[in-house]
Amino acid sequence: MSLLMHTLRVELGERSYPVYIGRDLLADPALVSRHVSGAQVVLISNETVAPLYADRVRAALGERQLVTEIVLPDGEQYKTLATLAEIFDRVMADRHSRGTTFVALGGGVVGDIAGFAAACFQRGVDFVQIPTTLLAQVDSSVGGKTAVNHPLGKNMIGAFHQPRAVLADLNTLHTLPARELSAGLAEVIKYGLIARRRASTRWLEADHAHRCWRAKRRPLAEAIERSCAIKARIVAADEREGGLRAHPQSRPHLRPRHRDGTGLRRVAARRGRGGGNDAGAGAVRAPRLYRRRRSGGRRRAAARHASARRAAARAMRREHFIDLMGRDKKVVDGRLRLVLLAAIGEARIVDDVDEKELLGSSRQG
Amino acid sequence: MSLLMHTLRVELGERSYPVYIGRDLLADPALVSRHVSGAQVVLISNETVAPLYADRVRAALGERQLVTEIVLPDGEQYKTLATLAEIFDRVMADRHSRGTTFVALGGGVVGDIAGFAAACFQRGVDFVQIPTTLLAQVDSSVGGKTAVNHPLGKNMIGAFHQPRAVLADLNTLHTLPARELSAGLAEVIKYGLIARRRASTRWLEADHAHRCWRAKRRPLAEAIERSCAIKARIVAADEREGGLRAHPQSRPHLRPRHRDGTGLRRVAARRGRGGGNDAGAGAVRAPRLYRRRRSGGRRRAAARHASARRAAARAMRREHFIDLMGRDKKVVDGRLRLVLLAAIGEARIVDDVDEKELLGSSRQG
Repeated sequence: MSLLMHTLRVELGERSYPVYIGRDLLADPALVSRHVSGAQVVLISNETVAPLYADRVRAALGERQLVTEIVLPDGEQYKTLATLAEIFDRVMADRHSRGTTFVALGGGVVGDIAGFAAACFQRGVDFVQIPTTLLAQVDSSVGGKTAVNHPLGKNMIGAFHQPRAVLADLNTLHTLPARELSAGLAEVIKYGLIARRRASTRWLEADHAHRCWRAKRRPLAEAIERSCAIKARIVAADEREGGLRAHPQSRPHLRPRHRDGTGLRRVAARRGRGGGNDAGAGAVRAPRLYRRRRSGGRRRAAARHASARRAAARAMRREHFIDLMGRDKKVVDGRLRLVLLAAIGEARIVDDVDEKELLGSSRQG
Repeated sequence: MSLLMHTLRVELGERSYPVYIGRDLLADPALVSRHVSGAQVVLISNETVAPLYADRVRAALGERQLVTEIVLPDGEQYKTLATLAEIFDRVMADRHSRGTTFVALGGGVVGDIAGFAAACFQRGVDFVQIPTTLLAQVDSSVGGKTAVNHPLGKNMIGAFHQPRAVLADLNTLHTLPARELSAGLAEVIKYGLIARRRASTRWLEADHAHRCWRAKRRPLAEAIERSCAIKARIVAADEREGGLRAHPQSRPHLRPRHRDGTGLRRVAARRGRGGGNDAGAGAVRAPRLYRRRRSGGRRRAAARHASARRAAARAMRREHFIDLMGRDKKVVDGRLRLVLLAAIGEARIVDDVDEKELLGSSRQG
């Protein structure tokens, strides 16, 4: 029996879609079939997640004309054009048409690559996100950003392609390693810092983060709902203001995603850390930089819960940082553009950060 | 001195863009700079076109911070994910940012792959089309359809990504082989048949097609302008009606592009023919099929000018045809959907064609 605990809606006109949060959602035939309506399905997962949940999703899909199950190797290093090509080989060999639906069952890597495959196959087919990590549930599964990595930069090749629905199943978090739960909590904190409502931050400062950490269901569902709601608002505003998502170069704009964590994550990846911690690290780093300019806040106390800072301190080397920042998407016409926190709920775009300031911030990480 | 003969506008709200038709446009610094405004440029061409025109475009671009010139091998067989990966390798190595502009200088293959690269690089950057074949000028450069091929199907991996501008330079047609000019004329005829205005068809039936064939500038400019105007109208209507371009599976709809030529073209490619003729062949084939159901018209007389029919007859083998149709994008949930001409200017969507009827039409090709 599935239990639906929260339903959100990402408002994007005719591309609006629901985000469901609850228990056993991925095994609910009515819910799954509502959003995977065609006769053909491409189910994409990885070798860690597929043995745990793929059978349940297949059962929930019921009888279909054609179901192709693609199990990717697990790891960010497989989020490449080469893996994408293998997906297309399978999908073409099985003769999927433009009426097919891609279903992403896994963490952020699976969601990003399956979403990008869905964006490109026949110039765009439906897809549904079933995120199975906390990080994917609170962040990457919502918003339609899809991509693969290039050896010289993360998420450099991708598309904006909104899912038809997101099914965040809390039960999948029981099988999640502690480090990945921590990575998700760091993201929850990031959204708390970005959001204008102080309630989010107070919620974090209370005992909730610790209770989430112990994977208690109620606080977790609430944390996911809060983060997704903030993200949904950002995505909806972004699309309505027009131009930015379609033409990212048109003007500076608040984009509170992994901005500052992206470069960090590449360094961390080399050291065998999970990527998510560094998104948190980025959220901590950027305020530090801003504080050097203005004033500090209580955000460090909150961030400490997720141990993001220390991970960053260990992972960070100056030369990597500068090199990676230079190649990242935050560089526009040779100028570095950062989203920094002036205070909780006050994200600002700053594009006059020079290398010295950056190093000053970095040294103290 | 450049000579601007026609300017059209593809009306797509904030993604509207101009189509310029004239002489020496690609060497006009003012025109080129108006639409390639950033400091960084990726100029993509092929080994046939680049030696003829790349220097002139580079000169027109003037001084820029960074210009990366990528020369692809010439031919449809290079319109692949592998070539795309090579483009990204160059662009990443040169550290292009999201403010860069991709410029496609060449025929349909260059435009499709450069456009798709621009669609995916950092989830979408600007691009400008400088089509150098008649087929690309009248068709593929307008409308934002970009793609690469999969070994099992043409244009199976792609995106909708509108250019910022299209510069159709008539002078580039002087270096075009006769067969490619013929391919472009077949496309002009297809648009004439699809358009609701009989004037287009009368224009074709008069001596104009022959004069185009002899590459006279005035009639050519007029033919390009007419075809682009029809195409611009279709693209604008399509986007306004909403949903179709974003969600191609949402409902049947008039899409009078290479629909019926796509399968044919793959057969022809194996036989070493230019792809364009088969778009014309498709335009002729589909009416034949419709005529078996209703009544004929004068379109054959017009199409004969481009010798498309005979090319199709030679290229076509039943088993290939059926196999390719089954894999093509025109199949939705296992049903074959075709755009057929009931009469000039009256395209209809038909989705109850069975295999026998198709073979009956094919046998007479």
